[in-house]
Amino acid sequence: MEKIDCLKNTPVLRDDERLELLAKLNQTFDGEKIGVNTLEGGNLPRRGEILTIINKLLELVFPGYNDKLFSLDELSDFFANEIKELELLLFDQICRAMKHGCKGDNCADCNISMQAKESVKKFLSNIPDIREMLKLDVHAAYVGDPAAMSYDEIILSYPCIKTIAIQRFAHLLYLDKIPLIPRMMTEYAHSLTGIDIHPGATLGQGVFIDHGTGVVIGETAIIGNNVRIYQGVTLGALSFPKDACGMLIKGKKRHPTIEDNVIIYAGATVLGDITIGSNSVIGGNVWVTESLAQGTKITAKLPEHYVKVGK
Amino acid sequence: MEKIDCLKNTPVLRDDERLELLAKLNQTFDGEKIGVNTLEGGNLPRRGEILTIINKLLELVFPGYNDKLFSLDELSDFFANEIKELELLLFDQICRAMKHGCKGDNCADCNISMQAKESVKKFLSNIPDIREMLKLDVHAAYVGDPAAMSYDEIILSYPCIKTIAIQRFAHLLYLDKIPLIPRMMTEYAHSLTGIDIHPGATLGQGVFIDHGTGVVIGETAIIGNNVRIYQGVTLGALSFPKDACGMLIKGKKRHPTIEDNVIIYAGATVLGDITIGSNSVIGGNVWVTESLAQGTKITAKLPEHYVKVGK
Amino acid sequence: MEKIDCLKNTPVLRDDERLELLAKLNQTFDGEKIGVNTLEGGNLPRRGEILTIINKLLELVFPGYNDKLFSLDELSDFFANEIKELELLLFDQICRAMKHGCKGDNCADCNISMQAKESVKKFLSNIPDIREMLKLDVHAAYVGDPAAMSYDEIILSYPCIKTIAIQRFAHLLYLDKIPLIPRMMTEYAHSLTGIDIHPGATLGQGVFIDHGTGVVIGETAIIGNNVRIYQGVTLGALSFPKDACGMLIKGKKRHPTIEDNVIIYAGATVLGDITIGSNSVIGGNVWVTESLAQGTKITAKLPEHYVKVGK
Repeated sequence: MEKIDCLKNTPVLRDDERLELLAKLNQTFDGEKIGVNTLEGGNLPRRGEILTIINKLLELVFPGYNDKLFSLDELSDFFANEIKELELLLFDQICRAMKHGCKGDNCADCNISMQAKESVKKFLSNIPDIREMLKLDVHAAYVGDPAAMSYDEIILSYPCIKTIAIQRFAHLLYLDKIPLIPRMMTEYAHSLTGIDIHPGATLGQGVFIDHGTGVVIGETAIIGNNVRIYQGVTLGALSFPKDACGMLIKGKKRHPTIEDNVIIYAGATVLGDITIGSNSVIGGNVWVTESLAQGTKITAKLPEHYVKVGK
Repeated sequence: MEKIDCLKNTPVLRDDERLELLAKLNQTFDGEKIGVNTLEGGNLPRRGEILTIINKLLELVFPGYNDKLFSLDELSDFFANEIKELELLLFDQICRAMKHGCKGDNCADCNISMQAKESVKKFLSNIPDIREMLKLDVHAAYVGDPAAMSYDEIILSYPCIKTIAIQRFAHLLYLDKIPLIPRMMTEYAHSLTGIDIHPGATLGQGVFIDHGTGVVIGETAIIGNNVRIYQGVTLGALSFPKDACGMLIKGKKRHPTIEDNVIIYAGATVLGDITIGSNSVIGGNVWVTESLAQGTKITAKLPEHYVKVGK
Repeated sequence: MEKIDCLKNTPVLRDDERLELLAKLNQTFDGEKIGVNTLEGGNLPRRGEILTIINKLLELVFPGYNDKLFSLDELSDFFANEIKELELLLFDQICRAMKHGCKGDNCADCNISMQAKESVKKFLSNIPDIREMLKLDVHAAYVGDPAAMSYDEIILSYPCIKTIAIQRFAHLLYLDKIPLIPRMMTEYAHSLTGIDIHPGATLGQGVFIDHGTGVVIGETAIIGNNVRIYQGVTLGALSFPKDACGMLIKGKKRHPTIEDNVIIYAGATVLGDITIGSNSVIGGNVWVTESLAQGTKITAKLPEHYVKVGK
């Protein structure tokens, strides 16, 4: 059989054709500047650096589970080194995020630099607490899943641990009103695991999300302690309040509050600024748009809705 | 504690055991040649090169948001360079895709080369229009999501933008009947975002898909302007027409047409070659298998299907 | 416009602040050792190596579809080389997995080394059979999807093929009771495709999962031949048996058995240790918690549950 050699190093376009195409492409940058990010002005946080930061944070809370391996003796040195690198990386990205789109008197370089340093300090100081929270999340997965064989298996392979860890870090930056970076972080987690938790959502202790693909947890959702959630669950908004001009009002509480010890089974949808009382159980595929008292169990009365044909 | 050294550089199999295994493995390549791609004959497009192409296209439509950063002065040079590289890469991959499995008189190298060059030209000439379309998609996300704070946040972190951008490019190649590459492109997007839009689907202007995980949009679906779709929505086929031999007929229109300004909430399923009239709203989890007139609102009458236990 | 230079190589924390933070972080490692993996003792299998193994296995069953390309003459040499490398990689990782958490007399290095070698041998000897199974899976996708144009398109771009291939390999290790690695493998597939099949699940011949995002197939599920499954389908557990102390009993059969030629449409949920008889069809979004006789067709009686407003 003849050997193929498709790649011939000759350009496809004539020079004039290429120039015409480039002229048309450049025109799309006239007028509205949607989708241009250059070195000038407030250039944006960089996806690659955000990923590096996320991976360093995950190494700090679960050391040795990812790329690097070291002995117990080296652990303190490893931490010291990672923290130093995180200081620089976080400062650079947070500074960019703050400068980008900043308006008014607070945007002088010295001001932004000072604010960014404060934000980095505050963020770093929370890492030990986040690690304590994540231990409880790992334990919640262990007691919540009959297929889980060990803590190590959960840390190595359960998608919820990675997602929740990243969201807990992103939430710190969200609370500190850092633009852009929190959502970049949670979307990285979403891309890895199919679990989409907005950085604004407030998560309690010992949250377990099993399987997780398709889970959506909205910006103003509040989740209590020891809550268990399965794949395909939405904690969403029922409707979006608009202002007098018909534009959406941003930031208003519009997602559910889930109290302690609630279980929400696969595919259930809980919408609006409602409260699901503690110890409630919401069955699979159930649709909830009003508050439930503590201890409510709600399941779909399904069989009579089905038509069976055949034996 | 003892230090482990599992890795010992000694093979596990004896030579005769390895030869026996290799003989058995080679036997699986006798007869049917499913799953072999070699340098001889029509070797297939390469996943790695397709990824490079996708990333270059995304850099052209949203310059500076990904790996590279440059000043405004350098933008034109950057574009010129990227286009030249894309010419070579696209020609090589499209040529492979056309040659692979090509039958009959049109398969001579010179013919395929000529056709591939025409395809690359047509494809490249559409990039400026795609960029204009994507600006409208970014705007649609901004007005459709109360959590969206800026265009930049959407371009940096909303999964629908990446998916729709890739699908719009793949659709151009699909319309030009290039085999293999369009689906490789959309499956890359699917893998990143959980949004599975077939390259054959026709998307209007200003399409917004929020969250997106689990969305499936079939090959012959047609979507109008300003349509908003949430996670878990399927625009699928109801049944597959078969020919006299019982084999599926490929390519027939079997997915829905969604007219302008329709909203389809999370988990809804719309099946078959039906039309959802403009300005309709389909509620979450609703199942639609017949056409709806313009302005129809359909929601599930849910509460009475539930059993509540407890308070 | 002023050019930004956020990155200044000065640390954010004072030395004493950094020491205080490190002290707090180190405290979180006192007491419970959740989330520490060091060179000492039974260090865990490595994610990066597991990925290398998976990619080599995929190259063996579908040579030439991924990174490497070679001529037909080179195929045997390629296989021989890959097998040799897999022997070393698999031995190292399986040895780590076995040693980690091992208790009692069988944990001497020589014992573990011997067991790991036997496991690698058994695993490798199954590769030819897995390849035969995967050919049938590719064929099942071709006859099951009207949008599929060729076997090559399916191997290059259908997510189910990658997921099912990885699960079939992981299942071999699961049956051999290798800890940690099987789940690491299937979670890699889950992350790529949104299809979550536990390594314990038993898959028959010619399984096709279309689109696949959100599919969950539990540890003790058994799937027959020629079964077709769509996106969002759950084959899950209904309740988890607990022991006298209220702890979950691990490993018990708690997921469905799906007999031959069953079709399960998008979003259906099948729960518990029930049997779906051969040739049954379960409609989209249907919820099944009891066994179905052979040839049963079950669909949701949906229209009357909806409220239409407008035309």
